[in-house]
Amino acid sequence: MLIAQHIKLSRILINTWQVDLIMIVSCTITYFAREFLITHNLDIPAIIPSVLGTAIAFFIGFNNNQAYDRWWEARKIWGMLVNDSRSWARSLINYVDEHEDSKPLIKKMICRHIAFLYTLKGALRNYDDNIYSKYLTEEELHEIQQHSNMHNAILNIQSRDLQLLSKKGYIDGFRFMELNELLVNFSNQMGMSERIKNTIFPTTYTYLTKVFIWLFVVSITLVISSYVEYWSIFIGWLLGFVFVSTQINGMGLINPFENNSAAIPLNQITRTIEINLLEMLGESEIPEPVKPINDEYVL
Amino acid sequence: MLIAQHIKLSRILINTWQVDLIMIVSCTITYFAREFLITHNLDIPAIIPSVLGTAIAFFIGFNNNQAYDRWWEARKIWGMLVNDSRSWARSLINYVDEHEDSKPLIKKMICRHIAFLYTLKGALRNYDDNIYSKYLTEEELHEIQQHSNMHNAILNIQSRDLQLLSKKGYIDGFRFMELNELLVNFSNQMGMSERIKNTIFPTTYTYLTKVFIWLFVVSITLVISSYVEYWSIFIGWLLGFVFVSTQINGMGLINPFENNSAAIPLNQITRTIEINLLEMLGESEIPEPVKPINDEYVL
Amino acid sequence: MLIAQHIKLSRILINTWQVDLIMIVSCTITYFAREFLITHNLDIPAIIPSVLGTAIAFFIGFNNNQAYDRWWEARKIWGMLVNDSRSWARSLINYVDEHEDSKPLIKKMICRHIAFLYTLKGALRNYDDNIYSKYLTEEELHEIQQHSNMHNAILNIQSRDLQLLSKKGYIDGFRFMELNELLVNFSNQMGMSERIKNTIFPTTYTYLTKVFIWLFVVSITLVISSYVEYWSIFIGWLLGFVFVSTQINGMGLINPFENNSAAIPLNQITRTIEINLLEMLGESEIPEPVKPINDEYVL
Amino acid sequence: MLIAQHIKLSRILINTWQVDLIMIVSCTITYFAREFLITHNLDIPAIIPSVLGTAIAFFIGFNNNQAYDRWWEARKIWGMLVNDSRSWARSLINYVDEHEDSKPLIKKMICRHIAFLYTLKGALRNYDDNIYSKYLTEEELHEIQQHSNMHNAILNIQSRDLQLLSKKGYIDGFRFMELNELLVNFSNQMGMSERIKNTIFPTTYTYLTKVFIWLFVVSITLVISSYVEYWSIFIGWLLGFVFVSTQINGMGLINPFENNSAAIPLNQITRTIEINLLEMLGESEIPEPVKPINDEYVL
Amino acid sequence: MLIAQHIKLSRILINTWQVDLIMIVSCTITYFAREFLITHNLDIPAIIPSVLGTAIAFFIGFNNNQAYDRWWEARKIWGMLVNDSRSWARSLINYVDEHEDSKPLIKKMICRHIAFLYTLKGALRNYDDNIYSKYLTEEELHEIQQHSNMHNAILNIQSRDLQLLSKKGYIDGFRFMELNELLVNFSNQMGMSERIKNTIFPTTYTYLTKVFIWLFVVSITLVISSYVEYWSIFIGWLLGFVFVSTQINGMGLINPFENNSAAIPLNQITRTIEINLLEMLGESEIPEPVKPINDEYVL
Repeated sequence: MLIAQHIKLSRILINTWQVDLIMIVSCTITYFAREFLITHNLDIPAIIPSVLGTAIAFFIGFNNNQAYDRWWEARKIWGMLVNDSRSWARSLINYVDEHEDSKPLIKKMICRHIAFLYTLKGALRNYDDNIYSKYLTEEELHEIQQHSNMHNAILNIQSRDLQLLSKKGYIDGFRFMELNELLVNFSNQMGMSERIKNTIFPTTYTYLTKVFIWLFVVSITLVISSYVEYWSIFIGWLLGFVFVSTQINGMGLINPFENNSAAIPLNQITRTIEINLLEMLGESEIPEPVKPINDEYVL
Repeated sequence: MLIAQHIKLSRILINTWQVDLIMIVSCTITYFAREFLITHNLDIPAIIPSVLGTAIAFFIGFNNNQAYDRWWEARKIWGMLVNDSRSWARSLINYVDEHEDSKPLIKKMICRHIAFLYTLKGALRNYDDNIYSKYLTEEELHEIQQHSNMHNAILNIQSRDLQLLSKKGYIDGFRFMELNELLVNFSNQMGMSERIKNTIFPTTYTYLTKVFIWLFVVSITLVISSYVEYWSIFIGWLLGFVFVSTQINGMGLINPFENNSAAIPLNQITRTIEINLLEMLGESEIPEPVKPINDEYVL
Repeated sequence: MLIAQHIKLSRILINTWQVDLIMIVSCTITYFAREFLITHNLDIPAIIPSVLGTAIAFFIGFNNNQAYDRWWEARKIWGMLVNDSRSWARSLINYVDEHEDSKPLIKKMICRHIAFLYTLKGALRNYDDNIYSKYLTEEELHEIQQHSNMHNAILNIQSRDLQLLSKKGYIDGFRFMELNELLVNFSNQMGMSERIKNTIFPTTYTYLTKVFIWLFVVSITLVISSYVEYWSIFIGWLLGFVFVSTQINGMGLINPFENNSAAIPLNQITRTIEINLLEMLGESEIPEPVKPINDEYVL
Repeated sequence: MLIAQHIKLSRILINTWQVDLIMIVSCTITYFAREFLITHNLDIPAIIPSVLGTAIAFFIGFNNNQAYDRWWEARKIWGMLVNDSRSWARSLINYVDEHEDSKPLIKKMICRHIAFLYTLKGALRNYDDNIYSKYLTEEELHEIQQHSNMHNAILNIQSRDLQLLSKKGYIDGFRFMELNELLVNFSNQMGMSERIKNTIFPTTYTYLTKVFIWLFVVSITLVISSYVEYWSIFIGWLLGFVFVSTQINGMGLINPFENNSAAIPLNQITRTIEINLLEMLGESEIPEPVKPINDEYVL
Repeated sequence: MLIAQHIKLSRILINTWQVDLIMIVSCTITYFAREFLITHNLDIPAIIPSVLGTAIAFFIGFNNNQAYDRWWEARKIWGMLVNDSRSWARSLINYVDEHEDSKPLIKKMICRHIAFLYTLKGALRNYDDNIYSKYLTEEELHEIQQHSNMHNAILNIQSRDLQLLSKKGYIDGFRFMELNELLVNFSNQMGMSERIKNTIFPTTYTYLTKVFIWLFVVSITLVISSYVEYWSIFIGWLLGFVFVSTQINGMGLINPFENNSAAIPLNQITRTIEINLLEMLGESEIPEPVKPINDEYVL
């Protein structure tokens, strides 16, 4: 998540230099082709870039809206994970009858939930940082590593322990139901995150946007070159840059679980839950909140 | 679901060649009609294509938005099926008391759910691949094939077995309620998928889009032919192509359960659930995930 | 629901002939008034139709969006009715203990639900086809006909019988709760359908659209008549037709429960539920699905 | 709620006469100021009204969309009140065991709910028509009048009686839960209505719309006065009128609980519930449905 | 929340004076640079500001829509807090069996909820007004101040007391479930508020808006300076001001929990709940509702 209010324009230029180069080369070729190849009395009608502009405006607007929606939905899902994680800990701590063996079991179930969050985050960001192993026993670690979907396997163990709590009579049916509902929620939130990660935004939308921007840049150069001479190269690029930067800006949000500066700060959110849960358990060693990098963004 | 980042322009031309031909013929006829039939001092005002352009922009935007919404809703429904399927297996495995006959019954109920998914997928895609029979007993197979709606019949058997579990005392009322809620969810997701498949997007929207694009192409040719001579045929087609490709792009998402490259990858999703459920059952023979075709799309 | 892909243009002209006539007359009067009454050196600025065009585009877009939303919401409500109807039958058949008098009671409750759907459909479409009486006993028929809201009265009887099932001990509290929840859903879906039927879309929106289209047609005729002479009458009408057909197209969806070709196919949906429920009851006489009319639409 | 299809244009002019006057005066002053004060060779570029037009289009579209959303949300909330009110009566009548004192208590609880609706309606529309007192006992009347929020106080009494029903053993836990859920829904719907009533739509949106329309009217008069002379006053006003009437139209929906012709027909809805509930109680004296006023609107 | 219908234009100028200055300086420099540095026969094509205008319109529309959505979502969340707070008090007062020690406990739990709201409000607005301490005992105060997240700690105590009520047998499982559900809701609403507060709206959107407005102002000055001479400075600024004020207007809603005049009136809402709850407890000392400041806004 970006937190800096002031972004350097140079950064945007660096992000788009390849496209900028293609555009400048296209404009230059177009300009000279028109100067030396096409007869001068042919006036390209301005309606071509105008219609293309309409099409591009639709595409960029559409892409940006859908990208932002995915980003915001992703944020909401992890917001729900925060809420349900707290309810999970609160319910376990307060609603399970006190017995000799209930307290360690509860602690295990809360820590295991932190492990669940770390494995889920790892799967969404395609890395395996192993932090989760800290919150699991040897046995559990062995069990979950036999599954292709580790976070799903952890939920399975949670269900088994919940059934244990119920069979031992430490919770009644109502409390069992409430805690199971939270497990179902975790399962849903996990599935929703995977849906956003695995569903590729229809690539034709981004492809046609590129084609039409290129056609626009070429046709606008043709249209204005008779008025402003070689300035048409600069103006062609400038107008193309306006569209390109807007498009790239939106596309930066389309995969909200990636490990980049514009994405959802999964590290920060996971850590916040970790801190909340450990505090509720009364632990003494609480990790630090995640710090922003260069005061620019949080991961 | 398309996964390739780079689409070949030729592909779009192949998809639209019929419309392209109609447009080029229309433009050519228009051009020559104007040259030889209409008196030259008549200037067609540019406001005609301009107003048509506005109407087309509205239609294409509307069609694309609704198409994407149907596509995304379809994806969400099958995402919920993934989540609830996992919860179904997790709950059955952990919340049913262990008895001599409970384990085989649970396995049967989980496998039957895989069969449910395969029959539902078959109904949505209009083919009968028979994979589901692998996960059903002879008797069950016989029973469901007497119904016009096979997936609904499977849910019926699931309810019957759930009642059995409850009557034998292997689950209490709370667990019965939770499992039944999942069955209700499956019934809802099945109905929602059928709703999207069976509700035809109002055909007047696509029809008027076509009529207005044709009128636009003809009128723009008339308007610009006095400036750019026979180039007006090419430009008329090019602008028409911009609208047509945008429209066709959107319409590719309108029936998200069809068996085409842009649709929801039901094969992949069903297989993912199948793998998850068999792993949770501890089966040794797990099928492979569905592979992309030509690195271009997943079905 | 329209199912034909190819709509005849003549049909649209027939639907709009009154408005077309008004527009042609207006254009003709405007043209001759300008020719003979107004001094020729007055040029009407093109900004008038241009601003009107913007306003009309907003209105038509707004009207179409809201109309489609009502239509789609209506379809969703009846989709939920399908799902909950199946769950109603599935639960009654499987979750009620078998006793001498339980089977006929269950059958009565499922048939009565079909009657509920037919009375609701009749109320939404303002006709009384009496099909529902087939699924009710004499007594029930007598009882519900004393109420102004027949479908609500049927739900009342369902509740009474549900309480009976519970008092006789054929279902426990959990099953009672689940079945009652379905009754509450039916009550909600009934109320939501009535809301859409009874809430008139703010008439000022359609009224202002008409006024502005008329002003647009007149002003565009004034603006272009000096360039294209009497052709301005034809062009004025053509541009007006583009707006009018788009507007009428949207308005065809605004009352989705009416008995017309663009509306939600309540007949078809009700029949589908009827077939599903009778099959689940194991009945031998199953009615035919509703057939499309002229391959053009389903009611 | 407006029900008339044909609105008189004169009505819109009456609604906007103040703004119309301001616009006409502004146009006139602008016209003469330009004629006599500003040097004639200064041409105001047409881009000023053009950019203003874009800004105004955005604002009017935004305001209308948000206004309609508030209106439709309000309608949905009261639709839910209809549904839950029927469920409230249906559940009380059928699910409470018959005892000597249960019947009068049930009747009291249903009548009290009608009183709840009337007090809520009174609070939303800022009047006190006292109809509610008909459905309350002296004691209850005394009790609720001591609270600043009368409808909330009524819900309080409902909860107390529900607890009474439960303590006397007339309903079991499941039925208690279901009825309490309806009370929670009433509390939510009451709060949601208050939210819409009390949240003022950000006034800057309406204010900037007015400022920009005024700037637009003045600048368009300046731009066209050299072409059409004193006609520019009329045209300036006409274009302003298009924007103003659209804006005022939308703003008529922004406070959907007011007592005006475009608002949600609370009188009609409340009466519908009243009739339904009294019929379900088997009462003989049923009030008439609310009639439209002048066939124009329902309150 | 702004309540004044009439905003002073001077206020908007004061809010934007820095940007206004930058724009005026840019226009002036541009004007003189063009006059004295650039050859006069170069005509800057009007398409540059036109394309920029399209991009700016998209950005401003997008920003305003998202800002309003955040604002309205924030309002809904606190509306739900109002509803659930009332249900919390209503349920505790009516559904807990009367015993010697139940009444004081209930009062403590309701007062503690008011403290929860005040700590949550304090956290959202970044101040610590200490009002909450009035509604907590010394012990509770001590306990919660050891947590980084005070409102979460209060919910923890609520759960503990709810378990106490249940263990003492003052409420049964159904009532426990209902009350716990409200606690889960509070936890969700708290988390949702934090999500909106902590998620920074992608800063690239606001940044690119600024860059494009600046480019627009400069290019429009270049384009029109040959027609209107030094008036181009004024017109350049005026058009820039239209965009800037629209943008700033929207951005004023983007952080709806801040302590400013456009934000959600948390003080007022919290006080309303406080009054409702104290009235329900039958307290005699009820605080005053929050008054608007200068009849302009409520905090």
